[in-house]
Amino acid sequence: MKILLIQGPNMEFLGRREPELYGTTTAAELDALLRARAGELGIELDIRYTNLEGEAIGWIYECVRAGYDGLLMNPAGMTYAGYAMRDCVRAIPIPCVEVHMTNLDKRGSHSVTAEAAVGVIFGFGVGSYLLGLEAICHHAGIGG
Amino acid sequence: MKILLIQGPNMEFLGRREPELYGTTTAAELDALLRARAGELGIELDIRYTNLEGEAIGWIYECVRAGYDGLLMNPAGMTYAGYAMRDCVRAIPIPCVEVHMTNLDKRGSHSVTAEAAVGVIFGFGVGSYLLGLEAICHHAGIGG
Amino acid sequence: MKILLIQGPNMEFLGRREPELYGTTTAAELDALLRARAGELGIELDIRYTNLEGEAIGWIYECVRAGYDGLLMNPAGMTYAGYAMRDCVRAIPIPCVEVHMTNLDKRGSHSVTAEAAVGVIFGFGVGSYLLGLEAICHHAGIGG
Amino acid sequence: MKILLIQGPNMEFLGRREPELYGTTTAAELDALLRARAGELGIELDIRYTNLEGEAIGWIYECVRAGYDGLLMNPAGMTYAGYAMRDCVRAIPIPCVEVHMTNLDKRGSHSVTAEAAVGVIFGFGVGSYLLGLEAICHHAGIGG
Amino acid sequence: MKILLIQGPNMEFLGRREPELYGTTTAAELDALLRARAGELGIELDIRYTNLEGEAIGWIYECVRAGYDGLLMNPAGMTYAGYAMRDCVRAIPIPCVEVHMTNLDKRGSHSVTAEAAVGVIFGFGVGSYLLGLEAICHHAGIGG
Amino acid sequence: MKILLIQGPNMEFLGRREPELYGTTTAAELDALLRARAGELGIELDIRYTNLEGEAIGWIYECVRAGYDGLLMNPAGMTYAGYAMRDCVRAIPIPCVEVHMTNLDKRGSHSVTAEAAVGVIFGFGVGSYLLGLEAICHHAGIGG
Amino acid sequence: MKILLIQGPNMEFLGRREPELYGTTTAAELDALLRARAGELGIELDIRYTNLEGEAIGWIYECVRAGYDGLLMNPAGMTYAGYAMRDCVRAIPIPCVEVHMTNLDKRGSHSVTAEAAVGVIFGFGVGSYLLGLEAICHHAGIGG
Amino acid sequence: MKILLIQGPNMEFLGRREPELYGTTTAAELDALLRARAGELGIELDIRYTNLEGEAIGWIYECVRAGYDGLLMNPAGMTYAGYAMRDCVRAIPIPCVEVHMTNLDKRGSHSVTAEAAVGVIFGFGVGSYLLGLEAICHHAGIGG
Amino acid sequence: MKILLIQGPNMEFLGRREPELYGTTTAAELDALLRARAGELGIELDIRYTNLEGEAIGWIYECVRAGYDGLLMNPAGMTYAGYAMRDCVRAIPIPCVEVHMTNLDKRGSHSVTAEAAVGVIFGFGVGSYLLGLEAICHHAGIGG
Amino acid sequence: MKILLIQGPNMEFLGRREPELYGTTTAAELDALLRARAGELGIELDIRYTNLEGEAIGWIYECVRAGYDGLLMNPAGMTYAGYAMRDCVRAIPIPCVEVHMTNLDKRGSHSVTAEAAVGVIFGFGVGSYLLGLEAICHHAGIGG
Amino acid sequence: MKILLIQGPNMEFLGRREPELYGTTTAAELDALLRARAGELGIELDIRYTNLEGEAIGWIYECVRAGYDGLLMNPAGMTYAGYAMRDCVRAIPIPCVEVHMTNLDKRGSHSVTAEAAVGVIFGFGVGSYLLGLEAICHHAGIGG
Amino acid sequence: MKILLIQGPNMEFLGRREPELYGTTTAAELDALLRARAGELGIELDIRYTNLEGEAIGWIYECVRAGYDGLLMNPAGMTYAGYAMRDCVRAIPIPCVEVHMTNLDKRGSHSVTAEAAVGVIFGFGVGSYLLGLEAICHHAGIGG
Repeated sequence: MKILLIQGPNMEFLGRREPELYGTTTAAELDALLRARAGELGIELDIRYTNLEGEAIGWIYECVRAGYDGLLMNPAGMTYAGYAMRDCVRAIPIPCVEVHMTNLDKRGSHSVTAEAAVGVIFGFGVGSYLLGLEAICHHAGIGG
Repeated sequence: MKILLIQGPNMEFLGRREPELYGTTTAAELDALLRARAGELGIELDIRYTNLEGEAIGWIYECVRAGYDGLLMNPAGMTYAGYAMRDCVRAIPIPCVEVHMTNLDKRGSHSVTAEAAVGVIFGFGVGSYLLGLEAICHHAGIGG
Repeated sequence: MKILLIQGPNMEFLGRREPELYGTTTAAELDALLRARAGELGIELDIRYTNLEGEAIGWIYECVRAGYDGLLMNPAGMTYAGYAMRDCVRAIPIPCVEVHMTNLDKRGSHSVTAEAAVGVIFGFGVGSYLLGLEAICHHAGIGG
Repeated sequence: MKILLIQGPNMEFLGRREPELYGTTTAAELDALLRARAGELGIELDIRYTNLEGEAIGWIYECVRAGYDGLLMNPAGMTYAGYAMRDCVRAIPIPCVEVHMTNLDKRGSHSVTAEAAVGVIFGFGVGSYLLGLEAICHHAGIGG
Repeated sequence: MKILLIQGPNMEFLGRREPELYGTTTAAELDALLRARAGELGIELDIRYTNLEGEAIGWIYECVRAGYDGLLMNPAGMTYAGYAMRDCVRAIPIPCVEVHMTNLDKRGSHSVTAEAAVGVIFGFGVGSYLLGLEAICHHAGIGG
Repeated sequence: MKILLIQGPNMEFLGRREPELYGTTTAAELDALLRARAGELGIELDIRYTNLEGEAIGWIYECVRAGYDGLLMNPAGMTYAGYAMRDCVRAIPIPCVEVHMTNLDKRGSHSVTAEAAVGVIFGFGVGSYLLGLEAICHHAGIGG
Repeated sequence: MKILLIQGPNMEFLGRREPELYGTTTAAELDALLRARAGELGIELDIRYTNLEGEAIGWIYECVRAGYDGLLMNPAGMTYAGYAMRDCVRAIPIPCVEVHMTNLDKRGSHSVTAEAAVGVIFGFGVGSYLLGLEAICHHAGIGG
Repeated sequence: MKILLIQGPNMEFLGRREPELYGTTTAAELDALLRARAGELGIELDIRYTNLEGEAIGWIYECVRAGYDGLLMNPAGMTYAGYAMRDCVRAIPIPCVEVHMTNLDKRGSHSVTAEAAVGVIFGFGVGSYLLGLEAICHHAGIGG
Repeated sequence: MKILLIQGPNMEFLGRREPELYGTTTAAELDALLRARAGELGIELDIRYTNLEGEAIGWIYECVRAGYDGLLMNPAGMTYAGYAMRDCVRAIPIPCVEVHMTNLDKRGSHSVTAEAAVGVIFGFGVGSYLLGLEAICHHAGIGG
Repeated sequence: MKILLIQGPNMEFLGRREPELYGTTTAAELDALLRARAGELGIELDIRYTNLEGEAIGWIYECVRAGYDGLLMNPAGMTYAGYAMRDCVRAIPIPCVEVHMTNLDKRGSHSVTAEAAVGVIFGFGVGSYLLGLEAICHHAGIGG
Repeated sequence: MKILLIQGPNMEFLGRREPELYGTTTAAELDALLRARAGELGIELDIRYTNLEGEAIGWIYECVRAGYDGLLMNPAGMTYAGYAMRDCVRAIPIPCVEVHMTNLDKRGSHSVTAEAAVGVIFGFGVGSYLLGLEAICHHAGIGG
Repeated sequence: MKILLIQGPNMEFLGRREPELYGTTTAAELDALLRARAGELGIELDIRYTNLEGEAIGWIYECVRAGYDGLLMNPAGMTYAGYAMRDCVRAIPIPCVEVHMTNLDKRGSHSVTAEAAVGVIFGFGVGSYLLGLEAICHHAGIGG
């Protein structure tokens, strides 16, 4: 099973960015953690960071064409106005699970991409990704 | 570790209620599934159904006084105007994880209790509860 | 044919409550009037008063399980924020007719449960119930 | 007792218009049905169709001057912006009962004329008219 | 100088319509009063009542083509949604003065046609028309 | 192929009405232009002007009954509150193409009838009609 | 008959202030014009300019105590947030007529004091004051 | 004089609940304090805690029937959506004084029940109850 | 203990102003009543009336500098848009208690200054001031 | 004549993306169709797909500098929040025609770029592009 | 070059007012700093503090008449509802530069006067004034 | 001291873009002007233009890692929906000063990135950049 993980705008700065909100785990440490867990779950995990919504959209279509089984995404900076990404997630035939490290409602935020995902997990810090891996694993395995 | 699971208004009718949204798993079947998984995770799971927001609030305070470690909740019918429940979740010293079977954003809904929870998981059907069990298990184990 | 009539919060005080709006007919007098009319229509009418939205929801599921044919309801105090009741009415397989004694629009009110009912009748005082009995009688008779 | 029934804009197309919403009963069939029922109730029923709000307003004043006892109205196309009709209904000394075939709340609509009526009945298809006849009959008989 | 006075929907019922708001002067009495005053001011006053916005619009274009010098209008029932009339008043090369018998702000109303008029006078009952005659007389006399 | 063209309120004044917005082509000149183009496209074009929304609605039902193939409409003064017209366009079995001479968005306007049309063309002045003729021609030809 | 005329904030700059909106008549010229007209109408006119809402409120109470018969006011800078002035106009037993030189609706403005006045006149430039003098003269003469 | 004190949802947890907002006085300590003060004022104080809006409504009608003289209430969790309680307070013939420990405006909250009370006191912590006792004592003593 | 009482715009007219809302007690009578009660509480009460928000702000800073212990204020006409006063109350190191004679919520009003006060009391007529004196007395005595 | 056609985010997936909305014509098939039609109209058509708003903006400035005569654009994923693109279209001296395959109003969408275009065509599927080619051809030919 | 600096409501308390927002520099210290900098720039700086919007408006007209070259203003307490001041700034022929010590957007505030200024500078504490001096110096020197 | 200047979407077209708003200074001329002024201030100025929000975000993180001291930014096309950029500016440890050439309030615009900046300067055309250079110079020098 092959899963694409999109890390949206500003995620490259994880660990230095507002650590009281996002913790001190760096992007590299998070990647290692997720690859380890993916291995246990039998997932081939393709992790990509970008600050460009359009680049992420392009990657998603590319991976769909390449036969990936699912999409895990932290829209990050695309959360507030990523309507093009929302349309992309609507368009693809593979399931998408959306995760956020923080509790969006506690911060008064609202994700415009969430309505296109299968499901959403937020508020558990790094744990949101781990729960998300299990969720996408289950959904992609059964056909989305 | 002892966890209270609150099943909010209308959940008693699960399996018969809008099955195209909520599936055909009944409340009894769901309980069995969750108790099995809780057993694997070493959680003592206390499942309670109510149609009364105030009864749920009373149970939560009772369980906090009895030393429970965490709260898992599907607010269900309290999702839209459960402000008293929101204040209750804010008041307690144990972590709460909120789950919904359906994708709230896809249905244009918004949970007023979500901002008081540690985190929220929605859209995965019965899977939302299973992911929620893991999440509350982790958070309650480390002190919320 | 068996019909459940739910009288929502504050209806127990009918006759003493804002009589310029609701008239001076008491709850007991109204019950007698409705039972008489139900008898003429061949309806077995089960009238229940409650101030508790959750209790009403529980009764409705109980009556559905007991094979009742329809629900007549004055949501009263549940009119403004009875979202759990709305979800309940959506969930049940029997028709619901909603009545109000006063003209909601004249008072600038809006019923959140109305969208889940088959139809709505308001503004005719005690007459709203009588018209409602006929309406639910017809709809329940033909399968909702 | 003499009652004017106003059928608002688009009602002439009943039976062909969005039959999944409005059914297949034609305007002519509906008229026959209502005249029959009116006969039973001892009502002289004057049915008029118009696509013109102003024409309806003129008819209402004409009928008030001619001593009619009540007004039954399906505002139809006037539902959304019929403020002039609302003012007309406010102005007349005879009671108005407003009916709609569909459940306005289920469709997210709101009637601007409803606040001026004695009461409103909606959601029962052709039955809304039959219930409306009874309601106006009762109200007109006792002076509105 | 030739002035067209448009009396909008429901004005035909003046004197009987909500007399606590509009007084007991009838339309006929008002016409006589205005014709007398117009005579003093040297105005030829063409008074027309209609319940049809479109008919009023047609009359206005007809009078513009016939060389009238100004328009005095009580939009009445067109006050709330008379956008077509607003566009008409914007389109014509002669000045329009808008009058209302009641204080719109006291009643929480807002006129959508007012922005297209030269000026607006409201709240003075029959006096609003008399002041309006002077105003349109002055404006039409100097070219609008 | 037979097409009805509805020219809504105020269009009769084209050429004199706010020429900086609508240009100086008169209604008569526009009609000639459209008839010529319709001839080339093999369309029998029935052009009707009205200031009365209800009259337009009546014509549309009449033409549907007479077997017309499509409707081209500039709602003009009905753009802002023509809800009855919107319901009419929803009701008919033939396709409607809506055109406006000006760019609605540039003027901060919104058409309430647009959602019922097949498609909308605006901003091209007289060209909007020409493009609209082609569009309705194509749609009506293939069944709407 | 004694009338107080309040000229609100920024009126002292009349003639130099946005002359394309307010014209080039200066405050002094306007005063002379109004005094002349007041003389003809038999009104003793007390004209006061202020940039301070509270000062104007104090003057009004002072004049009420001194037996003035009416209040003519251009709230000017108090138009948008003059709630204290609105409460003052509500409090006094003499009638108030509100005037504005420009058409508030054309400028997208709304007067918060208007609802407390007897009536309002706007859009006629200096003419608004002249019409206002007649209006207040009539209303004060008959007791407000 | 007999007064009912309703302590709404979550008040049972006082002293442990968000102590930075509500202080550390427990419900039991508060009761003792209020009973002492009530004794000084000659009030028989009946204190009841509930998490159930409907239960509180039932108690209020029961106490009205039993001849109580007034109602003191901290709606607490009913503050945000307690419309049924609002209707109840409107319905009863004895005065209600509403209190809150915190300053609602500082927290951006709004009480939906406040409009039905005689008056409201908030922001003084435990002091709000003491001031409320005096207020209800005075109002109930003179007939509400 | 020295307390400043600010009586905001229009309070000078108390007793004559909308007596159905504010009663017939005059400002002078109210002052005497409050001075008597202040004497009993050991408060030196400095009562000042103004129609000018800025003058009140200046007085408050002056009194803070002179060592006053607290501020009691009826913002009156400043209730709706007194943002400068709100900032002033936020700025000062002494406590402010805000009072209103009427129930703001019953009238659909909202105080913009309330969020800066310690607490708020409204709806008890003259009693609001008496309760306010006790409240400010207590708060100022313990340091605000 | 040289025209740039911008196909916005997600258009590369045409044919596979929500075919019930967008049909099954692929991007390649659409390009061929448009090139054929452009050839007939004597247009040199430069078709570019991108998922990056900024890249599209850069291309537009590049083409303006290179002397292109017009811009045809389906903003697609830029429809909802493409404010930078809107400013770009405002900035350029050549005309832009905006097209959408679906009826935006039917889907409750609103294009933020539309106000900057000459005109807009939507709802005709592939036909929207063909009509757009004609429109831009006409406008660019006469100078925009 | 002569510049008027208006320090709006509450600025007199600078240094003691919410120092975590506004710092501990007092008004006197700020004045000295600005006079020194003004001297370097060759500006004659007339600094005036007021809590009264109307007084500030009067000063501005007085200074315009006296030939001042520009206006520097911290509206302070007038920021939220200073509509009269906004109209004043619009009315005068000399440029106005608006400054705020804090970042308005960070605090969720919005200045109603800003739209009338040449430009706005905020967020730099005392530095906002120094930058403002340069800005007004430049603009006034070149004619505004 | 090293400062990054980000010129957002559409700034590359400066000088040709809406010159009545932005003037005729080209991007190249502006760069020269800013480099000269930066030299005087002892700033090493790194000027970068982009139409891609994500590219700008990437540059900012790159420059933070490279030890730059501050960020000067005209968000331009990112002003309206640049939420990802806002999160980026929040994330970085160096100060950001935001500038706009035009007065945002005069144009009814609102910058979503402004709340994350230290301060904002707008309305002074090219002067906004010069003032911004001084501001960032001061803030970066003292540690942000």
